[in-house]
Amino acid sequence: MVTLNDILIAQSRIKNVAHKTPILTSSTFNDLTGLNVFFKSENFQKIGAFKIRGAYNKISSLNEKERKVGIITHSSGNHAQGVALSCKILNTRAYVVMPSNSTQKKVEAVKSYCAEVIFCGETTDDREKATQELIDKYGYTFVHPYDDDFIIAGQGTVALEIFDELKDLDYIFIPVGGGGLISGCSIVTRSISPNTKVIGVETEDANDCYQSFKKKELVKLNSTNTIADGMRTLSVGRRNFEIIMKYVDDIVTVKDDDVIEMMKFFLERMKIVVEPTGAVASAALLKNVLSLKNKNVCAIISGGNVDLKILNQWIG
Amino acid sequence: MVTLNDILIAQSRIKNVAHKTPILTSSTFNDLTGLNVFFKSENFQKIGAFKIRGAYNKISSLNEKERKVGIITHSSGNHAQGVALSCKILNTRAYVVMPSNSTQKKVEAVKSYCAEVIFCGETTDDREKATQELIDKYGYTFVHPYDDDFIIAGQGTVALEIFDELKDLDYIFIPVGGGGLISGCSIVTRSISPNTKVIGVETEDANDCYQSFKKKELVKLNSTNTIADGMRTLSVGRRNFEIIMKYVDDIVTVKDDDVIEMMKFFLERMKIVVEPTGAVASAALLKNVLSLKNKNVCAIISGGNVDLKILNQWIG
Repeated sequence: MVTLNDILIAQSRIKNVAHKTPILTSSTFNDLTGLNVFFKSENFQKIGAFKIRGAYNKISSLNEKERKVGIITHSSGNHAQGVALSCKILNTRAYVVMPSNSTQKKVEAVKSYCAEVIFCGETTDDREKATQELIDKYGYTFVHPYDDDFIIAGQGTVALEIFDELKDLDYIFIPVGGGGLISGCSIVTRSISPNTKVIGVETEDANDCYQSFKKKELVKLNSTNTIADGMRTLSVGRRNFEIIMKYVDDIVTVKDDDVIEMMKFFLERMKIVVEPTGAVASAALLKNVLSLKNKNVCAIISGGNVDLKILNQWIG
Repeated sequence: MVTLNDILIAQSRIKNVAHKTPILTSSTFNDLTGLNVFFKSENFQKIGAFKIRGAYNKISSLNEKERKVGIITHSSGNHAQGVALSCKILNTRAYVVMPSNSTQKKVEAVKSYCAEVIFCGETTDDREKATQELIDKYGYTFVHPYDDDFIIAGQGTVALEIFDELKDLDYIFIPVGGGGLISGCSIVTRSISPNTKVIGVETEDANDCYQSFKKKELVKLNSTNTIADGMRTLSVGRRNFEIIMKYVDDIVTVKDDDVIEMMKFFLERMKIVVEPTGAVASAALLKNVLSLKNKNVCAIISGGNVDLKILNQWIG
């Protein structure tokens, strides 16, 4: 299992690549919720999301031969951009398998970091099959988006920065997709600030981790359709689940409408653009799902990559 | 004329009320422009714009009798919110004269700070007349949005923060509405960093200061219809013009379309919400109207208060 030391090493690897992102506050949000909330704002991270941390930590740890042959991943989201930019910085070829129905914007973003895009069918099986074929043929190294020790260690650096700035946190609320961010951050929290409770947050439609946590076994959904596209993974990873069961205090859920309300607050009151997945942890505070009072709470904003046209439809 | 000392006193007055706002950078913007740009981000200021600085400096400097009788201003924009919040903090009655066609959002914002809204006709004459009648009747103290030494000194504190963080700036680009911000900031620049050139920026449709600067006499427009609503003042103030002629190096203009392009960049790439007026100075860098190369430049983002529905229409 990943240790605090692995995460400290990751921090030294990424320090000249990833930003140390700001922690924002809003007196209006505090008045609304009766809490003292700190927003760790990874929407201001390189590529617009925390994923650069894990991707760079992983790829910079590969040996020269692996990097010479090239890296492959399948993703239509922020992980693809994290891998693409990391490879660009490390002068390594990146191959990204994306569903043929990916939006033009997402494809362009990945290509802008010089990665090669390979289109495949629209299901998870299609993606995995296309990726495996390329690995078998060319020997590329696969970089998993969350179920990987180096990825977990890289994402955990978010929490190192949080506890570097904030003492006496009662709670830390973290969005859960595949589980990379929460597993890395919960290891740090348990080591550095053992009294801080770690809460994972999902949307109701993507509540696989919530179900897994309650049943104490890994649950896989058949499908999800939440607006929080970073949470459309059908289950968390095996490594991630093990860490979550060991270190996370609770998993809660919010509705997609709560997420929209939160994104609107971010835009109108805090003047920041947050993607749906990035607003999920904060939405749990806006709705105060745990009925907390007068607590010091950090919510992680995981990213800000959202198509403005789609955003308009939600908030219009 | 306002001195650096007046601005230092203003800084000590406002220090527990106004935020010290962040200075943001974007490697993508630097790559696009060939410049090294720092964005002083007053969209993260209390009330969402720099106007709280001048308003609080002015109102906190009034004597007890004046504050007991009450404060009046006419504005449908950020100044109204600045006055309203300052009065709320100082436990003083605020009266804001607003045109009867003001949007519901703007009226609500002012009321949310406990100010009393008085509606009037839609022209500048209507506003001034309605305000004067109330002053004559009740003896309220009028707080001008820009043509006032205390307002100018308060707005100048933006530049104190800039030069506190940034050394060796070649240029500072500042939006020009009534001239409060640029006059305060140019005094600071000339005193603290005399080699930094001060450039004012307007939109073409609201180019009264550009014309005034070139003709060396105060020009008043008949009307303006720019999307930069903070620039719809028909001329800069007399005090402001005097300072601008003395300390500002040049005034340039951009098109409304450039402003929209800049707002879109802020949203998509930098994940921040900027109002049209707030994007004007940066738009002059995006379009590089002065053909600068390899320079250290600061652009002031004056505010982020924009109706999301209207924003959608522009960027959609």
